[in-house]
Amino acid sequence: MLPEAQRDYIDVVLVSPRNPLNIGAAARAMANFGFRRLSVVAPYAPPWREARSAVGAPELLASAAETETLAEAVAECTLVAGTGTLTYRKPEQPVVPLPGLGPLVERELASGGRVALVFGSEKHGLTRDDLSYCHLLVEIPTDSRQPSMNLGQAVAVCLYELVSRAFEPASSAPDEKPLAFAVGVGQTSSQLERNFAASSHAAPSRTLDRLAGVVEETMIAAGYSPSTMQATNRHDLRLLLRRLAPTERDTRRILGLFRRILWRLKRFPKGR
Amino acid sequence: MLPEAQRDYIDVVLVSPRNPLNIGAAARAMANFGFRRLSVVAPYAPPWREARSAVGAPELLASAAETETLAEAVAECTLVAGTGTLTYRKPEQPVVPLPGLGPLVERELASGGRVALVFGSEKHGLTRDDLSYCHLLVEIPTDSRQPSMNLGQAVAVCLYELVSRAFEPASSAPDEKPLAFAVGVGQTSSQLERNFAASSHAAPSRTLDRLAGVVEETMIAAGYSPSTMQATNRHDLRLLLRRLAPTERDTRRILGLFRRILWRLKRFPKGR
Repeated sequence: MLPEAQRDYIDVVLVSPRNPLNIGAAARAMANFGFRRLSVVAPYAPPWREARSAVGAPELLASAAETETLAEAVAECTLVAGTGTLTYRKPEQPVVPLPGLGPLVERELASGGRVALVFGSEKHGLTRDDLSYCHLLVEIPTDSRQPSMNLGQAVAVCLYELVSRAFEPASSAPDEKPLAFAVGVGQTSSQLERNFAASSHAAPSRTLDRLAGVVEETMIAAGYSPSTMQATNRHDLRLLLRRLAPTERDTRRILGLFRRILWRLKRFPKGR
Repeated sequence: MLPEAQRDYIDVVLVSPRNPLNIGAAARAMANFGFRRLSVVAPYAPPWREARSAVGAPELLASAAETETLAEAVAECTLVAGTGTLTYRKPEQPVVPLPGLGPLVERELASGGRVALVFGSEKHGLTRDDLSYCHLLVEIPTDSRQPSMNLGQAVAVCLYELVSRAFEPASSAPDEKPLAFAVGVGQTSSQLERNFAASSHAAPSRTLDRLAGVVEETMIAAGYSPSTMQATNRHDLRLLLRRLAPTERDTRRILGLFRRILWRLKRFPKGR
């Protein structure tokens, strides 16, 4: 059982929800399983207003954080897990079947981290850009003939999994029982596990974004690639940093290095 | 993972659902997790009609069975599991936390049985009478401050549990890892486990009802208790039979005995 105090270190993030009933259902599932921290990214105004003012709306809706971007919503989080089905896209990060999420969340919380579970809009799910902020993609084991879950039900199933599986005796001995991962592009499952296990204190998303900004600036300053490639580079860089999962300390070092490089590049713009 | 073919031996039973959106959500969760057998007991006609005719309604709604009573809906089932929260009532049968349901269902299906998962109406949940048809009560681990789940979400969480946990390698060795049960009134957890393990082929609900009928007739014929106690006796008898979980063969024997007793009682009504 996930201890109650730990649930306050898990954020549920809804990206651009469109249906007030779904927002209400997501909030109710959170209340059912004892979670309180809801963030809503760029909500459509009328359904968001309607959901919050509905009779019997859970209290946590009133105290929900509202942000313009997913980057802001997950800024403090050290492990960002996107949710979705894989039937219609090729994932760019490691895929974790939902039953394997508990131990990862457990380890993250035990080392003082903060976790976000991110749900896309009912219409599109998470976009490729949304997913680039995620360390991993959680796959709910749905039937291939009807893979797409209702938002409120998906939230309920994911939170149930965390409440019932994290901090189970069986999962507290990761060395004896390795996690079974499906493997994403560019990384083996043992890499992800090793990286997360090694990072006693993974850097929060905000720090990774700051590092990415300096690295990108460096790429541009260095004339690394044509300007038409900048968006793609930015995207790939975000994914890479989340795959590497550096600690705060790692990040400070890398940042120091890149700042130095950048300073040099700008001082001697001709590459002398 | 629960093999797909096995899912056709698990019935989802909704008792008197009132909200067409909830019926639709329950059906969708079934489709998401690959279940097809839905039974609806005494549905309110307008929402039932509305749910079935909704745009995009899953096919399984069209082929759902409709019965007047719960007894009919679960007649062929050898393990009937009610669902609900325990905050407002004292259960009369063993309580199984949802994370412990998988191994029981697995064993039941492996021995050729059929399982029903029963959900009460949104307003009242399962009544005491409904519950008397259940071998056990499944408890979803919700927060005590907001224990009551939305119907569609409760169905989703229960089916997710079955799909993801039953037939897991860890649960296939029941002797090595005993199930952790909360214990219901009048029975220890090991009793339930032993009884279910011993019954290579538990008798279906219909057979238990036939036996209960003969036993009740015998009680009356024997002047066992005042007629004001008949309803209570009938209720307790149903619970008892489900707790004992006799096999078909056990049931035939007990039935034979009671038929004999009854014949004697009727032949010599004065107890001579």
